[in-house]
Amino acid sequence: MKAERTDNIGFGNLRLDQQPEDFCYGVDAVILADFAAEFCKDGNLIMDLGTGTGVIPLILSYKSPQSTIYGLEVQEESYRLALRNISQNKLTERVHILCGNVKEIGLELQPALLGKMDVVVSNPPYMKSNGGIKNNNPAKTIARHETVGDLTDFMRAASRLLKGRGHLFMVHRPSRLVDLFCTARDCGLEPKEIRMVSPKEGEKPNIVLIHCIKSGGNELKILPPLYIYSSSGEFTGEILKIYEK
Amino acid sequence: MKAERTDNIGFGNLRLDQQPEDFCYGVDAVILADFAAEFCKDGNLIMDLGTGTGVIPLILSYKSPQSTIYGLEVQEESYRLALRNISQNKLTERVHILCGNVKEIGLELQPALLGKMDVVVSNPPYMKSNGGIKNNNPAKTIARHETVGDLTDFMRAASRLLKGRGHLFMVHRPSRLVDLFCTARDCGLEPKEIRMVSPKEGEKPNIVLIHCIKSGGNELKILPPLYIYSSSGEFTGEILKIYEK
Repeated sequence: MKAERTDNIGFGNLRLDQQPEDFCYGVDAVILADFAAEFCKDGNLIMDLGTGTGVIPLILSYKSPQSTIYGLEVQEESYRLALRNISQNKLTERVHILCGNVKEIGLELQPALLGKMDVVVSNPPYMKSNGGIKNNNPAKTIARHETVGDLTDFMRAASRLLKGRGHLFMVHRPSRLVDLFCTARDCGLEPKEIRMVSPKEGEKPNIVLIHCIKSGGNELKILPPLYIYSSSGEFTGEILKIYEK
Repeated sequence: MKAERTDNIGFGNLRLDQQPEDFCYGVDAVILADFAAEFCKDGNLIMDLGTGTGVIPLILSYKSPQSTIYGLEVQEESYRLALRNISQNKLTERVHILCGNVKEIGLELQPALLGKMDVVVSNPPYMKSNGGIKNNNPAKTIARHETVGDLTDFMRAASRLLKGRGHLFMVHRPSRLVDLFCTARDCGLEPKEIRMVSPKEGEKPNIVLIHCIKSGGNELKILPPLYIYSSSGEFTGEILKIYEK
């Protein structure tokens, strides 16, 4: 039995169970949820690809209270935790967690969801399957490395699930920006906005947020950079606002 | 007869003749030349695609004094001015201006240059042929709009002319970043570095510098932003250093 940890993550006192040995959510998931929330409208259908323990659906359920949210997770243990997290927060009526691979969603898995989503969000594995140092823990490896699904699989799934002019929001590493742009366009998702995220002002970005529109026109907007910490090491005002603290 | 203007543009008192009615070089050309100069080594062969009146070869002749530089220009009037500028600055031995279209360079035009360049630089037309407001002056339209050669033509030419692992440096608009990345990769040129350029700190970028390597590995580096003016409206220290003032 793996050790568990329960946190009150805010956003209306949401309760989140995680297994720290496997994976804990980071600031990436929170800023991605906030980036997407601005475009989520009442009645929207939203899908989170690679939802882990369901933190993005939880935050979105708070930031977009009139939407219906799906989360897809390939790892059974994370999937079970996500199910429990949704149930404990009494969100089972409008948040639905599915177990399966991004390669199959909208095809053999839940074909009824094909072309139905208004918004897809994803915090996919950042590293190529052959890149970086792999962890001995297989759950961490699947969450961080493109072993079970790669960027093309995630983009293809997003494109399949979205309505025409639907929105994809993804968080990734800036070093993969060429892969992101080329794969998105190949999948019929046009990158419309990017936002670079740095730990502090003056430091190089280590995260990028990207917003694509299915069949969108070719014109990219560069959003102002986002900084996580101020020079004194505290969260910046914008991050505090995102966390609603 | 069109009005002409002669400037001492610095960089060892280079003299540049231009026809303001047609086109005058901007800060884009200067920062591009500086961005490329760092990678130009003694004995290198350099090509400037769309050289206009030859300002980039002139600056590079100063910043990289042991290299041989070619400049290609499709417009006959600009080509003649470029020839005159090179001759007036006594650089005819190592700067060679060619007249022709990027679509033909290294093929029907100068086939001997195929695969020979160490470095290609280009400040191509920024706007799509159907984009923005076209100028009544055809010379300005060709310099600014993709009428005679588009981004793919410039990238293909660069790829053809470069040696394996050769460097391309280009300046363009940030709104075209997806086109830049996808076209470069399609042409076998891998984007390795980008640098956003803003008029002032806190303002959105209006220029992007991009460095690609022919057959390079897939990993992009985001360079620190470059600002042209300080808050008081003067050139920043970095721009003064680039202009060597």
